[in-house]
Amino acid sequence: MELTVYLAGQIHDDWRENLKSKAKEKDLPLTFVGPQTNHDRSDNVGEDILGKQPGNVYKDDAASSINNLRTEALMQKSDVVVALFGEKYKQWNTTMDASAAIATNKPTILVRPESLIHPLKELSNKANVTVETVDQALDVLSYIYE
Amino acid sequence: MELTVYLAGQIHDDWRENLKSKAKEKDLPLTFVGPQTNHDRSDNVGEDILGKQPGNVYKDDAASSINNLRTEALMQKSDVVVALFGEKYKQWNTTMDASAAIATNKPTILVRPESLIHPLKELSNKANVTVETVDQALDVLSYIYE
Amino acid sequence: MELTVYLAGQIHDDWRENLKSKAKEKDLPLTFVGPQTNHDRSDNVGEDILGKQPGNVYKDDAASSINNLRTEALMQKSDVVVALFGEKYKQWNTTMDASAAIATNKPTILVRPESLIHPLKELSNKANVTVETVDQALDVLSYIYE
Amino acid sequence: MELTVYLAGQIHDDWRENLKSKAKEKDLPLTFVGPQTNHDRSDNVGEDILGKQPGNVYKDDAASSINNLRTEALMQKSDVVVALFGEKYKQWNTTMDASAAIATNKPTILVRPESLIHPLKELSNKANVTVETVDQALDVLSYIYE
Amino acid sequence: MELTVYLAGQIHDDWRENLKSKAKEKDLPLTFVGPQTNHDRSDNVGEDILGKQPGNVYKDDAASSINNLRTEALMQKSDVVVALFGEKYKQWNTTMDASAAIATNKPTILVRPESLIHPLKELSNKANVTVETVDQALDVLSYIYE
Amino acid sequence: MELTVYLAGQIHDDWRENLKSKAKEKDLPLTFVGPQTNHDRSDNVGEDILGKQPGNVYKDDAASSINNLRTEALMQKSDVVVALFGEKYKQWNTTMDASAAIATNKPTILVRPESLIHPLKELSNKANVTVETVDQALDVLSYIYE
Amino acid sequence: MELTVYLAGQIHDDWRENLKSKAKEKDLPLTFVGPQTNHDRSDNVGEDILGKQPGNVYKDDAASSINNLRTEALMQKSDVVVALFGEKYKQWNTTMDASAAIATNKPTILVRPESLIHPLKELSNKANVTVETVDQALDVLSYIYE
Amino acid sequence: MELTVYLAGQIHDDWRENLKSKAKEKDLPLTFVGPQTNHDRSDNVGEDILGKQPGNVYKDDAASSINNLRTEALMQKSDVVVALFGEKYKQWNTTMDASAAIATNKPTILVRPESLIHPLKELSNKANVTVETVDQALDVLSYIYE
Repeated sequence: MELTVYLAGQIHDDWRENLKSKAKEKDLPLTFVGPQTNHDRSDNVGEDILGKQPGNVYKDDAASSINNLRTEALMQKSDVVVALFGEKYKQWNTTMDASAAIATNKPTILVRPESLIHPLKELSNKANVTVETVDQALDVLSYIYE
Repeated sequence: MELTVYLAGQIHDDWRENLKSKAKEKDLPLTFVGPQTNHDRSDNVGEDILGKQPGNVYKDDAASSINNLRTEALMQKSDVVVALFGEKYKQWNTTMDASAAIATNKPTILVRPESLIHPLKELSNKANVTVETVDQALDVLSYIYE
Repeated sequence: MELTVYLAGQIHDDWRENLKSKAKEKDLPLTFVGPQTNHDRSDNVGEDILGKQPGNVYKDDAASSINNLRTEALMQKSDVVVALFGEKYKQWNTTMDASAAIATNKPTILVRPESLIHPLKELSNKANVTVETVDQALDVLSYIYE
Repeated sequence: MELTVYLAGQIHDDWRENLKSKAKEKDLPLTFVGPQTNHDRSDNVGEDILGKQPGNVYKDDAASSINNLRTEALMQKSDVVVALFGEKYKQWNTTMDASAAIATNKPTILVRPESLIHPLKELSNKANVTVETVDQALDVLSYIYE
Repeated sequence: MELTVYLAGQIHDDWRENLKSKAKEKDLPLTFVGPQTNHDRSDNVGEDILGKQPGNVYKDDAASSINNLRTEALMQKSDVVVALFGEKYKQWNTTMDASAAIATNKPTILVRPESLIHPLKELSNKANVTVETVDQALDVLSYIYE
Repeated sequence: MELTVYLAGQIHDDWRENLKSKAKEKDLPLTFVGPQTNHDRSDNVGEDILGKQPGNVYKDDAASSINNLRTEALMQKSDVVVALFGEKYKQWNTTMDASAAIATNKPTILVRPESLIHPLKELSNKANVTVETVDQALDVLSYIYE
Repeated sequence: MELTVYLAGQIHDDWRENLKSKAKEKDLPLTFVGPQTNHDRSDNVGEDILGKQPGNVYKDDAASSINNLRTEALMQKSDVVVALFGEKYKQWNTTMDASAAIATNKPTILVRPESLIHPLKELSNKANVTVETVDQALDVLSYIYE
Repeated sequence: MELTVYLAGQIHDDWRENLKSKAKEKDLPLTFVGPQTNHDRSDNVGEDILGKQPGNVYKDDAASSINNLRTEALMQKSDVVVALFGEKYKQWNTTMDASAAIATNKPTILVRPESLIHPLKELSNKANVTVETVDQALDVLSYIYE
């Protein structure tokens, strides 16, 4: 039983690579997908593909349309979603992706530090499982195969 | 044609009352619903109903389960969603509600100040309409009846 | 905003009447529906309508087909489900109704005594809200209108 | 035509291994999945992964969230569900899984002893097929390939 | 709780009027809808509205497109479907409507005489309830309100 | 049985008023909704509400977002869709609305002149009914009530 | 692009084998599935698996439950449905399967002789394509790959 | 992660072959499907398979039923849709396919020249991404794999 896992969440550190390499060590039949993790490329992809836009609002809208298409295409192919929140940034895309996943019945694991328990309490309550570390998220994924 | 509108978003000022009274002045056949706007009641409702919980994590989870049931029941009865972002707070519930509304095909209007264009760009791109003020959101609702 | 509430659960005491009269006292705009609460009628309705069946298995199947049609028709018209577990009986119909409600995205409140926490833990985790008394369930319903 | 079969039901004997080995003898192209069958692991998985919880209620809720994620992920990948009831235990998870399967249009086979005909009559009526033994359930699965 | 009931089935006798008048006697809050019962009008409606067609095949296709639109519009507004089979005619429209109702989760009551048990066995097994007379179908509808 | 009808199609003549007044003469319990029929208002509504945009592309996108929200909100409330094609204009919005209606199972009547049979053949084949005049469309709506 | 095709329809001649061998000659990447074509086995499968039933009604119901499970499991795996009507028999299962396929958006090809045009006109109008011979149905399937 | 891409749009030039060969150069794991691109075959397929029809209207309807079955079967297997508009022709099928794709939540890329910005503004606003050239569409597809 192969499963595809969408890794939503911040793109500012290497948590995805960390998770992937540990999953590989455990020989889990998981395929991981996720958003563009090159922050500049993610912000500029609209102008990179469509050319110069008439200001930042339009540059942002062009980029976001392409990022959203990518997310939708990959999330629809996924069987489980892991959404990680860190202590910095607004992380509205993480919230948006996790909420869309839950609303479309994708089994969803929320990863968030203790400091975010209160502001994330409603999203955490809607997610299937909430954990505090990436290793715990992998333990949950691994449990599916026990 | 009566429509029910769910007003997602921050509960720290009186934007909902403002919107409702202007809709009434315009004689629009709209019914407005939304989250609990008494912040303390929203945070405490778990313990208010279920009794003392063994710490803040559990108090939060109890409250959020009841807040989520309320939101789900009311949003399923709604025809349009207005989601307002202000300049303060994390506003993850607003993001969560807007994303769930979009994922379940509820026509959705995003209200956000200019300062939030960049961090909200993906959600804004997914919403049907993005405006900057509550009055503009009401103009959009009013346009449905022209 | 009128809501229809399906009251799933045991039919051996008057908890439904109790809940309805308290909702009336609070002037909540709720309509309550639920299963046949006359136990004999529920067991015999197959033979009552279709005539004598060739044994208990067939009598049971005839009755259950009519009970299931009733439940489906009424639950599809409902906006919220309350499912009550008592300390006696197998209560598989309560479990079946609550699980079907959750699987079709009906906001669901589980009512169960402390003694049933362990065996009901998975269903409780899937329900939106779990409480211990009928009064608490009514408090949750009432909170939707605050 | 390969099919994946979710085996819901009690985890206290080896009925799943029995079924799997007989399916293998018949060379049926079936993949079987199901819940965690190590009872202690199933009860403790919340604390195993998330650490010590403040009491049994919280230990149970943590475990159930992980068990539910597993069940959802695997059941969504399944084409047919077999749900077995034995003569002991409350078996509310079996009921919950079978009802969720039926509500989401998974073809479902119920296995139950004669002694449970009456209390399971409504669930049995909703299932596609009801049989009394695991061998009969396998005969039904086998019939798909005739 | 008002319910709308679609009455699928043969249009060659007055079973619908019979059912409606008995429902009225019982003061049941039911609204009945159904297909065009004037057989000639049903066969000719294509040419009546669109004008002469180049042969019977095209006359039939024109009529059926309008009959199907009517059925779809009314069935989508219905909460329960009653499908009656008599002893004559091919009755493929009755089968088509009952099957479409079941596939879209409309609670469905099949009415068929004893002589049709064998050829209708699969459809009967999929329907929620099977009865032999229109009076029994009304008893089932009436039971929803007990 | 009241029905709501969405009138998609060109906004350059008074076909909607014509249809509405004839429906009124026939006393049909129909409520009609549709797009903004003031062409200038439809083109300018983005700038009317959101203010001056940096060029025509952005003016168009702003207007279309608001027009689309209106269409979605009203079409979701509709039970039947009538989509009229005339002999002029590209009429891509009519096609878009008719196709979206059909894809979401709204019973749909296409009105198109004989001259458009060939280019509209695939859409016509997917619609429930195709007619050539508004009067014929009304005859079809009227037939639902016979 | 491999496609799975469900072959609904009468089981009294070898039209399925005919279609399969011609598809093989054309090297089309199609997998064909369908109902049990051994008529006696289909009628007896309930008693074959569950043992002697108390009369023909119960024998029929037992068989139909297993036949329906088979059909549901295989049709959910299918991408296209071909439903063949011959000139004999009631063929209610063919109608039931075709209607369920259409209601769940499976692209559906109806095969029926000229003599059945009138009684099948509504089902034919709902199907995607109607043809008169099995060879024509294969031509349509083959066209998908041109 | 292999993806299937449906290429909707005009069939009068070789844009599909162009796109496919560039995707191959980039080694993207994409499978492309789309409509019949032989215009005569597409127009004549009804008569080719079903034989002579009694006039052009019926020839068109026969062809369109087969074209629509092909489109539905292939689009349901697709993960992403690219819809290209050129400067000539009515292109109602392109609009129909793009709108159906969007309505069923297929991530959709619109390709249209600058000259069509105004008449396509509502469809463009509903699509996930709008670009002006086939190369840009491929850049967006390619971005999914970065």
